[in-house]
Amino acid sequence: MTRPVTPLLDRVAGPADLRALSDGDLRRLSDELRAELISAVSETGGHLGSSLGVVELSVAIHAVFNTPMDKLVWDVGHQCYPHKILTGRRDRIRTLRQKDGLSGFTKRDESDYDPFGAAHSSTSISAALGFTLGRDMGMPTGDAIAVIGDGAISAGMAYEALNNAGAEGRRMFVILNDNEMSIAPPVGAMSAYLSRLYANEPLAKMRALAEGFEAALPPPMREGARRARQLVTGSMGGQGTLFEELGFDYIGPIDGHDLSQLLPVLRAARARATRPTLIHVCTVKGKGYAPAESAACKYHGVSKFDPATGTQSKSGGGAPSYTSVFGKALTDEAARDPRIVAVTAAMPGGTGVDIMAERFPARVHDVGIAEQHAVTFAAGMAASGLRPFCAIYSTFLQRGYDQVVHDVSLQGLPVRFAIDRAGLVGADGATHAGAYDLAYLCNLPGFTVMAAADEAELMHMVATAAAFDEGPIAFRYPRGAGEGIEMPERGQILEIGKGRIISEGTDIAILSLGAHLGECRRAAAELEGEGVSVTLADARFAKPLDRDLLQRLAREHRALITVEQGAQGGFGAMVLHDLAASGLLDRGLAVRTMTLPDRIIPQASPAHMYADAGLTADSIAQTARSILRPAASVVSLSSVV
Amino acid sequence: MTRPVTPLLDRVAGPADLRALSDGDLRRLSDELRAELISAVSETGGHLGSSLGVVELSVAIHAVFNTPMDKLVWDVGHQCYPHKILTGRRDRIRTLRQKDGLSGFTKRDESDYDPFGAAHSSTSISAALGFTLGRDMGMPTGDAIAVIGDGAISAGMAYEALNNAGAEGRRMFVILNDNEMSIAPPVGAMSAYLSRLYANEPLAKMRALAEGFEAALPPPMREGARRARQLVTGSMGGQGTLFEELGFDYIGPIDGHDLSQLLPVLRAARARATRPTLIHVCTVKGKGYAPAESAACKYHGVSKFDPATGTQSKSGGGAPSYTSVFGKALTDEAARDPRIVAVTAAMPGGTGVDIMAERFPARVHDVGIAEQHAVTFAAGMAASGLRPFCAIYSTFLQRGYDQVVHDVSLQGLPVRFAIDRAGLVGADGATHAGAYDLAYLCNLPGFTVMAAADEAELMHMVATAAAFDEGPIAFRYPRGAGEGIEMPERGQILEIGKGRIISEGTDIAILSLGAHLGECRRAAAELEGEGVSVTLADARFAKPLDRDLLQRLAREHRALITVEQGAQGGFGAMVLHDLAASGLLDRGLAVRTMTLPDRIIPQASPAHMYADAGLTADSIAQTARSILRPAASVVSLSSVV
Repeated sequence: MTRPVTPLLDRVAGPADLRALSDGDLRRLSDELRAELISAVSETGGHLGSSLGVVELSVAIHAVFNTPMDKLVWDVGHQCYPHKILTGRRDRIRTLRQKDGLSGFTKRDESDYDPFGAAHSSTSISAALGFTLGRDMGMPTGDAIAVIGDGAISAGMAYEALNNAGAEGRRMFVILNDNEMSIAPPVGAMSAYLSRLYANEPLAKMRALAEGFEAALPPPMREGARRARQLVTGSMGGQGTLFEELGFDYIGPIDGHDLSQLLPVLRAARARATRPTLIHVCTVKGKGYAPAESAACKYHGVSKFDPATGTQSKSGGGAPSYTSVFGKALTDEAARDPRIVAVTAAMPGGTGVDIMAERFPARVHDVGIAEQHAVTFAAGMAASGLRPFCAIYSTFLQRGYDQVVHDVSLQGLPVRFAIDRAGLVGADGATHAGAYDLAYLCNLPGFTVMAAADEAELMHMVATAAAFDEGPIAFRYPRGAGEGIEMPERGQILEIGKGRIISEGTDIAILSLGAHLGECRRAAAELEGEGVSVTLADARFAKPLDRDLLQRLAREHRALITVEQGAQGGFGAMVLHDLAASGLLDRGLAVRTMTLPDRIIPQASPAHMYADAGLTADSIAQTARSILRPAASVVSLSSVV
Repeated sequence: MTRPVTPLLDRVAGPADLRALSDGDLRRLSDELRAELISAVSETGGHLGSSLGVVELSVAIHAVFNTPMDKLVWDVGHQCYPHKILTGRRDRIRTLRQKDGLSGFTKRDESDYDPFGAAHSSTSISAALGFTLGRDMGMPTGDAIAVIGDGAISAGMAYEALNNAGAEGRRMFVILNDNEMSIAPPVGAMSAYLSRLYANEPLAKMRALAEGFEAALPPPMREGARRARQLVTGSMGGQGTLFEELGFDYIGPIDGHDLSQLLPVLRAARARATRPTLIHVCTVKGKGYAPAESAACKYHGVSKFDPATGTQSKSGGGAPSYTSVFGKALTDEAARDPRIVAVTAAMPGGTGVDIMAERFPARVHDVGIAEQHAVTFAAGMAASGLRPFCAIYSTFLQRGYDQVVHDVSLQGLPVRFAIDRAGLVGADGATHAGAYDLAYLCNLPGFTVMAAADEAELMHMVATAAAFDEGPIAFRYPRGAGEGIEMPERGQILEIGKGRIISEGTDIAILSLGAHLGECRRAAAELEGEGVSVTLADARFAKPLDRDLLQRLAREHRALITVEQGAQGGFGAMVLHDLAASGLLDRGLAVRTMTLPDRIIPQASPAHMYADAGLTADSIAQTARSILRPAASVVSLSSVV
């Protein structure tokens, strides 16, 4: 595809250039920006819909505010593609989410225009308040502007931040990007009139004007505007919004695709605000690209697509995803046991519980972006006698960590944690890495922690968790497709705390936990080819440890290598603690724990990320060689072993 | 002191007996219960003020609801003493918070009347919703009642739960125990009238009646009632509360010390509610005990006291607390560096930042019960160039774990974490143990993690953190008094990642991290007395590890013992990972990691808890002996070494 001609965009090297344009040119620029965005994402894939929704807003903010001295904080950050194009990264926009390319989120070390990175939701108001304090204490910082969606602002963390920002009472801006409600955009004369009003009135009157505008709308539109006012507010009657109660000035709602509303409102707010100010902007996800507008959900995250038709390229056939295997296995267990319920925090599709919801809608609970509540809600259900599966990605379960400790572990309640996206996840990068769950779960008393080596193992673990009532139990599994192995009719209940030997040897033992078993198999094959006799085992359980297996591997081999898709402090650490306590290290045991390294692994394909992390078949084999033949570049090991 | 005569209370073995009493007798019982409570807590110490505030409420709930089939969930749980007295635990109430005694919080394994334990705040609505789901799915569970304070309900987690409970729309009860606002209690004829109205009207009308009542009040009281309506609501004008917007029926405010209001309102609610129902109850912390009422803050948690005068027994003189040493050191650093700011989540006194606030009030930010926001707010300040100290107890920092990972660690922002209450904390028990911070911080890339061996070391670490701008840095220290050592004029900046040798020997090395150094000293002295030559070192840094020191200790001794006041997966695990990677285990190294054990340690004095945990001078010495002379009861080791 040839790129569209974009003469205005070509002249914008950064926001400073944009500020020299007329309002009319900014409108043209927005159209060009949208075309460029669609073209770029059709090549890279990514979060198209949310980025299309903020094209005009991105232009308007940079045109009005003095970025990067003013600090623009995009919540979540997946809507930042237009922002990146406008802030000197257009030449790399077609590297989005790729190895060595631009991040799919805002990222501090990528640009001065990204003062605060994100990826997890609902952090922007807290960060913006931090910058505001910095400004007021003489740091080289201008105004802070948080842009946050209607989903993200409903999370507890955002509420905490609004509460505190309102109490502080300092000048800062929160732009609520409300793309749930699509009010019919006011057009023509009315819109222009409103903008003129905004431009000439003191800020305090703007809200009243908006209300007057609301009243002047024809009934269907008025209903939409009223809905806007209700959104996350405490007011049906328009007597005051939650934001105002919390100490914010409130302006809105305005049409976020109409620069003739956006520009004057932002200019007026910037010129005259003295207090925390919330600007309520309504946008349409996927705006301006028909295939995305008509199916906003499908276009939240897209793969490469044909810009003419919107048809996304499919990853061809192959093994089922772990997510779908989980969803189906859970549904099967739920069909057999009416006590099984599922909890998700705004990710029914991502976690696969939507599969269960098709058959048992009343037993699947989507609590919104609310991981803290999700965990304790599940704990309450477990205390009542139900069998809750709490399905949360590894990286997002971090949000409910205290609840896992305090409400689940300390009380020994049988909540089942289905931890998807364990390990490195690819294009979403370091912010989404499921690196820590093994470490933060394995030291909790009474917890049972499993990791699935393949999709059949995942089925067994779902069955095991469903049947296990003695305490909390978790099982982790990676993003993406399974190994493509034959699937059992039904998951089997595993013996708690027992691993399995995959193949037996005499020289060296590799003890794998979880989905790196395939790499371990390849490492074992490499080594066997070199004459090294390898025992390969799958621990299945990070907790409780299979002590018999561990002792046997330690005593019967010259070396023991543990392998896991997680950070230090997890499975390998528990193995080391146990070996040390049992005295098995006293007389010498060449043990190596292969974990994620103590550094951040940037986005790439999962395979590339694991290579970067030093967790490949080759590196496992090389670790084995380095033990068997220290400080030598090994050509053949047959003489050594 | 002789116990008061309590004939009614003597007849109440449990809530069933209480339900047989007349309303007049319930009133008498409340008075007796209050006297019993004051008498008991004067002997044990504990959370007197909050318990005094809910005497009538506890009586009313148990009189009206069918506990334990109905599930009563006290938020935080520190106000549960009257509840414990009423639910068959009166005979043990004078063992509160002591070894083998009653917990100072609700606890599932203590009584069927404690269906969900607590200690951290804001979990009750989530748990109650879980029970509600259980009830609706046929579990043996009645109605769920959450009782939550006005502080706890303002936390993000509670907001998430209200949001979800409102959307579910199921019958459940949230009692907002509002003890911030002390409206003058309506008395006499008006009160009786109101109660009769409540008793005879459908639930939907009750709120309107309350409004009418509000309007009928004389102006000063009306203002109080209006304030009640505003509390965590979105409505100045009385047009609707946040709770109603979220899907709750709202009743209130009512006087929580007046059983003639409480009983009919709860009866009416129980009889007729079909939906989530919030009952707004106003109480006075410390109610009915003059010394507590007049100084609610001081009486939040009390030591033993003289019930006649309210005079608390003091722990006599001694070393300054770590908390005060931190507060003073921070204030000194803040005086030298205007960029230093402090953040606390509703614990200015507990964390010692109130000391800094006396001198620099504008630079200390209390964000409320909002650890998630606190961490990211601090991250934003750090990004602006400020030097924030985020002072949060170890156990409560768990609430901000994802923010530590996502906003601080991944971005490498120089937030200083002052982690008080690290390790075992005594009477508050397992829920407050600072067991996990080392484990959940040490595997975060770029983090620097210190632990103070004594209060002088703490001063050095405050100075080190203040000067350190290269990334996130944390320092932990225990609850209670320091070692009583001489204090430096000013803290010194420590070399990052360097430990210190305390004493040198040849046989065995003990590597201590943090405040167990004293125990390690005693262990070393014991062993030296037996002829074992001990090297004792203080690691100071859990991260980065002092590799030179580690190598030296490992190479020059027959055994290495690490000691820390934390769970597995922390400092000892990092030492093991490092020793394994460097090959130092290959030829044999008797290494032992002494950590908190993999089980819950119940409340007792910290010393007793550490004894229970197997972390004492004796057990450290015994570990050393077991290595030097395996499987022998050691009388003298001089022949061995």
